[in-house]
Amino acid sequence: MSRFLTSHAAALPSTVPFTGPEALERQTGVPFRARLGANESLFGPSPHAVAAMQEAAKGAWMYGDPENHDLKQALAAHHGVTPAHIAVGPGIDGLLGLVCRLVLEPGTKVVTSLGAYPTFNFHVAGYGGVLTRVPYRGDHEDPEALLEAARLTGARLIYLANPDNPMGSHHPAAVVEEMVANLPEASLLILDEAYADLAPPGTVPVIAADHPQVIRMRTFSKGYGLAGARVGYAITNPDLALAFDKIRDHFGMSRVAQAGALAALADQAWLQGVRERTVAARVRLAGIALANGLRPLPSATNFVTIDCGRDGDHARRVLAELAALGVFIRMPGVPPLDRCIRISLGDDQTLDILEECLPLALKAAG
Amino acid sequence: MSRFLTSHAAALPSTVPFTGPEALERQTGVPFRARLGANESLFGPSPHAVAAMQEAAKGAWMYGDPENHDLKQALAAHHGVTPAHIAVGPGIDGLLGLVCRLVLEPGTKVVTSLGAYPTFNFHVAGYGGVLTRVPYRGDHEDPEALLEAARLTGARLIYLANPDNPMGSHHPAAVVEEMVANLPEASLLILDEAYADLAPPGTVPVIAADHPQVIRMRTFSKGYGLAGARVGYAITNPDLALAFDKIRDHFGMSRVAQAGALAALADQAWLQGVRERTVAARVRLAGIALANGLRPLPSATNFVTIDCGRDGDHARRVLAELAALGVFIRMPGVPPLDRCIRISLGDDQTLDILEECLPLALKAAG
Repeated sequence: MSRFLTSHAAALPSTVPFTGPEALERQTGVPFRARLGANESLFGPSPHAVAAMQEAAKGAWMYGDPENHDLKQALAAHHGVTPAHIAVGPGIDGLLGLVCRLVLEPGTKVVTSLGAYPTFNFHVAGYGGVLTRVPYRGDHEDPEALLEAARLTGARLIYLANPDNPMGSHHPAAVVEEMVANLPEASLLILDEAYADLAPPGTVPVIAADHPQVIRMRTFSKGYGLAGARVGYAITNPDLALAFDKIRDHFGMSRVAQAGALAALADQAWLQGVRERTVAARVRLAGIALANGLRPLPSATNFVTIDCGRDGDHARRVLAELAALGVFIRMPGVPPLDRCIRISLGDDQTLDILEECLPLALKAAG
Repeated sequence: MSRFLTSHAAALPSTVPFTGPEALERQTGVPFRARLGANESLFGPSPHAVAAMQEAAKGAWMYGDPENHDLKQALAAHHGVTPAHIAVGPGIDGLLGLVCRLVLEPGTKVVTSLGAYPTFNFHVAGYGGVLTRVPYRGDHEDPEALLEAARLTGARLIYLANPDNPMGSHHPAAVVEEMVANLPEASLLILDEAYADLAPPGTVPVIAADHPQVIRMRTFSKGYGLAGARVGYAITNPDLALAFDKIRDHFGMSRVAQAGALAALADQAWLQGVRERTVAARVRLAGIALANGLRPLPSATNFVTIDCGRDGDHARRVLAELAALGVFIRMPGVPPLDRCIRISLGDDQTLDILEECLPLALKAAG
């Protein structure tokens, strides 16, 4: 341990919220045949986005525009807000870290769901926040319980993902709107809408762009298929959006990524096609689960969470057996969610591999 | 101001360390003809790096390897250290922020030079550190004065860039080695070697990779010509390198950027060519300065700092007149360095534009 670390930093673990598939491949020496664990888009980004990045690569000697001007203009037009309502950052992961840094002091209370996005918890711990975790109700995050916990603890931050990861469930817009209407005065709601682009109609709530207590997070990593480019954005009131300028890495956005995101946003027809392929792939993946005696949960995302019907040890065995067969998936980390495995949607070729391997893995898992 | 900000965050300004050239272009409505202000490499990245990024763009639906395994292996081999001595991050800017976060608490003392890299100061302020700024001696950062200030203040961090930005000067390796040998026990030295790839032979000090009190910063933004990709790395003892895992954005590196950096590193012949073109362009740029009655300072970097012979107001006028003619440059921010302007090296075509515009700008500046 370097003696120069603050006592807080020294006490933090040097752990990774998620192990990458490449690390698992290096451990086994065998590349995955099906990469279905990280909720990446196997349908890929728009060809126009790829072409834009390829063109921008020639200009990679230039820093990206630190103001993300063009992208913010386009996002504002897309969402019907002003550019002042938008903050662009290196993925939702990066933006969650920035929000935590802006809002948390050591001991500040934060509320999330037990089993929800671990990277948010990583950032909260990293800035000394104190987490209260509220159980899921069934397979859904529980807005009422989150609000109640926030009231009880005086939480400054509440985290809700809609649609949810890792369960793939969603609340209809009205439920989230009701939650927003009942936010405690002391609380800022982080509404993580990473999967909103793929959600069923009626999922995305109407929230005033100037609402002082809500920050929505969006990404190019899921529906737009640009996880490897690192572009996310927040939609919030201009005061809070401007506060990111106090601490963000102003030249931190890749010029290539900016170009890719701009082109991806412009190709809404591609996104619509991804939506349609997503719906079809959900049906097929659910069918594979059912054919193997497992229960697929309804999905509003680009993955299907599948109840293996037993406990976490069993689900972990299924996951390990799939990995041994070359299929990378992930699963929820805590009971009772960890009775499930989480499989990203794939193209037909990749789901063929899953279809072949799942019965073998289940048999081997016992 | 959002009421959710911590008092520390609320007190930080929403300022940008540097205004980007794109913002200046939007203000004037006229694109720059010569982009010579950000010390980007007008010689560009290796064509192999461009090709690698173009290929990787097709796979941008995948997250990058969060362990940066392949790049760390290659960097370790290149520098004769182990991968455990390397931390990869989104540019030196991003890494400086992470080091500040690991090491600083509100009130922690930090020493840098008066007029040195503003983004470092931005991060120090962002984490509540208290800066002592030591004057340059002539046009060089002053290692003895930095050490003395660190001793007097009990500084936990000392920042030294070698070669230096914004003056372009450098210390020979022995001076830095002497500084390292005399570090106060309480101090960690950040040695920013962003321009080391372009420095004259004999500039890069020999420092034990396990030294507990030094962290070196390197980048693909300068010599390798990949500023828009956002890849930097630190070389330091494994304890400190590992500490980055406590707080870094594990999935924050662009997959496209990882591929570009790996290919750029492999093409040392290209870097050598850039070095040779850099030396030639320094000579030409110095000649342009001299032909206009200005004094070019010796440069160990990809820019030449030019003493305009009067005060900061005059130099700012020269800069503004050059901007009006379509030439983007920058200049040091504080006296007495701000008697100078700082012009990045260019290819011949771009230096032709500078050669044409500089006399006009000087005449207009009076």
